[in-house]
Amino acid sequence: MQARQIAVAVPTVTVQDSVARAVRLMALSRLPGLIVVDARGRPRNVLPGTQVLQMAVPGSYREDPALVRAIDEAHADIFWQELGNLTVGDCLLREPARVITVGLDGTLLEVAALMSRQRSPLVAVVDQVGVLVGAITLDRLLTRLAILDPDI
Amino acid sequence: MQARQIAVAVPTVTVQDSVARAVRLMALSRLPGLIVVDARGRPRNVLPGTQVLQMAVPGSYREDPALVRAIDEAHADIFWQELGNLTVGDCLLREPARVITVGLDGTLLEVAALMSRQRSPLVAVVDQVGVLVGAITLDRLLTRLAILDPDI
Repeated sequence: MQARQIAVAVPTVTVQDSVARAVRLMALSRLPGLIVVDARGRPRNVLPGTQVLQMAVPGSYREDPALVRAIDEAHADIFWQELGNLTVGDCLLREPARVITVGLDGTLLEVAALMSRQRSPLVAVVDQVGVLVGAITLDRLLTRLAILDPDI
Repeated sequence: MQARQIAVAVPTVTVQDSVARAVRLMALSRLPGLIVVDARGRPRNVLPGTQVLQMAVPGSYREDPALVRAIDEAHADIFWQELGNLTVGDCLLREPARVITVGLDGTLLEVAALMSRQRSPLVAVVDQVGVLVGAITLDRLLTRLAILDPDI
């Protein structure tokens, strides 16, 4: 089985999109991460879900558990309203690009090794010129593995 | 809102369970990770899904993309049949314990900061003596945040 056979179309974001939109998009599409594409439709970053969440959690809270515990419940419920106009690009400036991609003919093992090595439950599938064709989620990979091996 | 209000019951594994069973359990329950509990029902490890997958990908494949590309498609489809009797405990021996837990009264912000800091889309919710009560997935957290904030 090849990557092209299990890839599915997924919504994407660009660096101009707001973090709020990115989080909402991921939640609505129930994806375990998001792919950031450039103007030519090539993946610029593949973000595991926890990294998308990280963009929505102010840095001071991320690094200081004691501070987080001091925030009362009412304010903790609405923490992400502080995001304002923060964009995906604002957050990714500080991060090295992580382009977690596989070619159309990538095998299940290649996808599994990539997810495992990069700790990403999402892999972008790209064509010969690097344009995004679809994505493979961990969930989808495992389902295919289970189908191929019904005895385990 | 508190952790106790959004935690859900999840299937768990122990160190005696086979890796094959763990992967299948995660796939069937569509969880983004797994909680390993001890004999008293206390979380011993909280494993992000990619780490569960990692247990199923032989180490030589994980670290060597060139080797992985050399494996033909037919063999790549069934790589995880090589697991044999490998147990969760066998794999975790090499790993430091990562107990990613929050108390029953943890806030949404506390859960979000923890997921983000630990890069885990799964958090264990424990009672006063550390026994597992339930789990919160990234998906569930985001859904709750979106409910609380319908305008974004």
